[in-house]
Amino acid sequence: MAIKTVKNAAGRTVPLEINGLPVIPYKGVGKHKPEGRKYGPPIPSCSDYPDDGNKVVASLEEALRKCGLKDGMTISTHHHMRDGDLVSNKIFELASSMGVRDLVWLPSASFPCNDPVIKYLADGTINRIEGSMNGPLGRFVSEGKMKGTAVLRSHGGRVQAIQDGEVKIDIAVLAAPSADSFGNAKGTGGTSACGVIGYGKTDSMYADKVIVVTDNLIDLPCFPMEIEGNYVDYVVVVDKIGIPEKIVSGTTQITKSPDRLLIAELTASFLEKSGILKDGVLMQAGAGGTSLAISVFLHEILKKKGWKSKLGFGGSTKYMVKMLEEGQMGYILDAQAFDLDSVSSIERNPNHVPYPVFNAYNYHSKGNITSMMDIMILGATEVDLNFNGNVVTHSDGYLLHGIGGWQNCLHARNVILPVPLFRDRIPVIVDEVTTLCGPGELIDVIITERGIAINPLRQDLIDSVKNSGLPLKTIRELKDEAEKICGKPQKPQFEEDIVAAIKWVDGTVIDVVRKIKT
Amino acid sequence: MAIKTVKNAAGRTVPLEINGLPVIPYKGVGKHKPEGRKYGPPIPSCSDYPDDGNKVVASLEEALRKCGLKDGMTISTHHHMRDGDLVSNKIFELASSMGVRDLVWLPSASFPCNDPVIKYLADGTINRIEGSMNGPLGRFVSEGKMKGTAVLRSHGGRVQAIQDGEVKIDIAVLAAPSADSFGNAKGTGGTSACGVIGYGKTDSMYADKVIVVTDNLIDLPCFPMEIEGNYVDYVVVVDKIGIPEKIVSGTTQITKSPDRLLIAELTASFLEKSGILKDGVLMQAGAGGTSLAISVFLHEILKKKGWKSKLGFGGSTKYMVKMLEEGQMGYILDAQAFDLDSVSSIERNPNHVPYPVFNAYNYHSKGNITSMMDIMILGATEVDLNFNGNVVTHSDGYLLHGIGGWQNCLHARNVILPVPLFRDRIPVIVDEVTTLCGPGELIDVIITERGIAINPLRQDLIDSVKNSGLPLKTIRELKDEAEKICGKPQKPQFEEDIVAAIKWVDGTVIDVVRKIKT
Repeated sequence: MAIKTVKNAAGRTVPLEINGLPVIPYKGVGKHKPEGRKYGPPIPSCSDYPDDGNKVVASLEEALRKCGLKDGMTISTHHHMRDGDLVSNKIFELASSMGVRDLVWLPSASFPCNDPVIKYLADGTINRIEGSMNGPLGRFVSEGKMKGTAVLRSHGGRVQAIQDGEVKIDIAVLAAPSADSFGNAKGTGGTSACGVIGYGKTDSMYADKVIVVTDNLIDLPCFPMEIEGNYVDYVVVVDKIGIPEKIVSGTTQITKSPDRLLIAELTASFLEKSGILKDGVLMQAGAGGTSLAISVFLHEILKKKGWKSKLGFGGSTKYMVKMLEEGQMGYILDAQAFDLDSVSSIERNPNHVPYPVFNAYNYHSKGNITSMMDIMILGATEVDLNFNGNVVTHSDGYLLHGIGGWQNCLHARNVILPVPLFRDRIPVIVDEVTTLCGPGELIDVIITERGIAINPLRQDLIDSVKNSGLPLKTIRELKDEAEKICGKPQKPQFEEDIVAAIKWVDGTVIDVVRKIKT
Repeated sequence: MAIKTVKNAAGRTVPLEINGLPVIPYKGVGKHKPEGRKYGPPIPSCSDYPDDGNKVVASLEEALRKCGLKDGMTISTHHHMRDGDLVSNKIFELASSMGVRDLVWLPSASFPCNDPVIKYLADGTINRIEGSMNGPLGRFVSEGKMKGTAVLRSHGGRVQAIQDGEVKIDIAVLAAPSADSFGNAKGTGGTSACGVIGYGKTDSMYADKVIVVTDNLIDLPCFPMEIEGNYVDYVVVVDKIGIPEKIVSGTTQITKSPDRLLIAELTASFLEKSGILKDGVLMQAGAGGTSLAISVFLHEILKKKGWKSKLGFGGSTKYMVKMLEEGQMGYILDAQAFDLDSVSSIERNPNHVPYPVFNAYNYHSKGNITSMMDIMILGATEVDLNFNGNVVTHSDGYLLHGIGGWQNCLHARNVILPVPLFRDRIPVIVDEVTTLCGPGELIDVIITERGIAINPLRQDLIDSVKNSGLPLKTIRELKDEAEKICGKPQKPQFEEDIVAAIKWVDGTVIDVVRKIKT
């Protein structure tokens, strides 16, 4: 069946229907005004829950049965167990053995440890994944092997879609490092501590049924209640929800590559010279090796100047924790902790606060914190001459990973992409991104080891550094330079079939990924 | 127009319509199963909110105008400013001057300081109050002078009604002792500190528009975010939101009456001898003089036995704080702080935690904490031979006060009503309560200065104290004794007109209050 397509406001051809549901084509930044009302899950009654508050059932299978697991349901999970997740695969293993088919999996992200679900995608237990897909999973999708069409959303877009009822969660299965028998749950304590579990908050609020799975059942009350027991149907106690050393890194590692260090230095220097870095600055960086180096450089500047960042938004790392502890950062608001230092900081420092993506990233909210961030450090697989960014596919056309918070973060005041000019001899700056994930008007500065390109829309930034001695170039100059070294990369070849839709933060479809031609 | 009436499951005659809206008659405890979905407020978009997160507008009037205040709207407020509230009256003063009519006021409670709204009830600015009404306000309603019909809900019933969409809040105006410009708000800090502002949480989540009014604008981020800025439209900064000495008592006062002290002693003794008081007990008491004395006695027993209450649910007082600080209580979960010691405890003790009624009392939730409480100390204006309780009218038939959390608390394991046998020579135990607020099957023990009556449904409790030496009586014996002293009280006379509906915790109507015959 041929599905009608249309060119959206970004000039990308998108279908008017995905997985049988109508599509709103991307209209431009801030242009789509939502109508209607937030999703209302069924009204529960205390009379259906035990008076003693004890919701513990014997097994995940029993909990799934009690939740009425059946064909076609949408099952959500969060990714706080990261590559140590022992819960998600188990759900589908059980579903498969129960003969349930055509499930939709809505993870907040997936990791290599989730590759075994390929089996359940192949045998029909899972119809599709709406979420990130890396490595073998991405390849499986790119090769057109998934029955349904993938839907990729940003972390905030996932919240938006759940809140708005674009996706309806039948059963949320939320792994919890600590929980009480009522279902109050948190990310600290026990042997599977991950710091925070805020990615599950929206799921708990909007899912019809909620299962908390823990390996550390503690006495009531479990505080802080990152997940509120009032939203929880069943609690399952298992031996292990995760493999500790894969949940958080023992320690996050700064890049050792001289090129990446140069990029980090240039970024810090740019932020200082442009005046973006200032006393009271609000900042967010990532946990990649280059981002960590940038954090360290920025920390040094703050110390030197006697400045203090008002708050940092995490993904937290030990380098942010250091800023907090040494007095160069007022608060860490934390959506996920990347290393052990961060987990322990959350446990003991009252200024290191769990801060769910619900509050940080949801675009269908009465404002959120991303638009207030002065410094936003992001990555990209590709950036094009119009500053458009791609984070989901590589230049070979394969789905590489999810959007994460990337689209949401584009709404910050100053969006800086420190990227290498090329990776494995493939240029990062291209004529046109393979997949459009973020419109160029929101991307302000590209910083490479061979120069800095500022988006012409940000004349203020161009002016701020014009006599700074920084190696300013146009984005075209950067692209030409890369191609001089690497040659012009071959464009990937695609079939017509759409294997994944890329949602914008407002629920519209900004682009699609097509089946790779093999 | 005659509205059809029906006898509900408690045998009370209730109308099938109130304020033009259909009524579900009370069906019995746990019998009404809600259908349908939670209310979905309109979906907002960040594109309509300032990127810098600054939602401060010049005045409450401007905020109300921006919220589109118009005839017939429902305006909600919380009561955390208690008798020092300087915000609620102001709303209606402004509305009146703007020529707006027929508003519905949905406070979480009202206080004597709110009596000035009588003017706006009289001039048509306010159609009706859905909430508690004391003193002159109650008299105004009882005399049939309010245009609409009052709807009285418990604290949890108010949450339920908002969540379920039975009442739709157009504008929530939430006073906040501290708030940042994004609208994150809390109950501590500044000169109007009240400890917690959790009664406003549901309002913020479900109202179409939310205004935070503060006299203490603090730097972002305001933590803890009892009100999340993501739900807030406007922030208004005023000189004073409340009169400090009327917001919380300087100190809560234990009763000095010998009779009340005897009741308190008997209560503590009953709880000890029945085995209800135990190591790990979950308890809740009030802030009345007798309740405070009970707390002190229970504290002494806990200390003597070397026991520790797992948690206390507040309304917190300095006597609970003492238990927490001296090690006889693990946590205080707090919905409102009654005195300065409690406010300061919340500010500094991590085990004294804000705990909104949303989580504590809502019956349309997946369980809540009240059903887990071992000890629940409550009051009543009347109790009848079937252990039914009344808390809203006096025996003279006048509306005296709101339901508060009373109905919600009836779901505790052991509901104890320490009440004097008579007040001002009017017996508390009557043949039949004037207004039915809580069904007798949920009320376990009546403790008076002249004896203890245990509900025959609680044979287990009767057995537990049968050889205890406690002055056990039947409720009829207590009633007869009171009448021997005071004589049989005259029944109040009513007109047919219904002035107030009493909702049960599930949104059904358990009784009504009729116009007083004068």
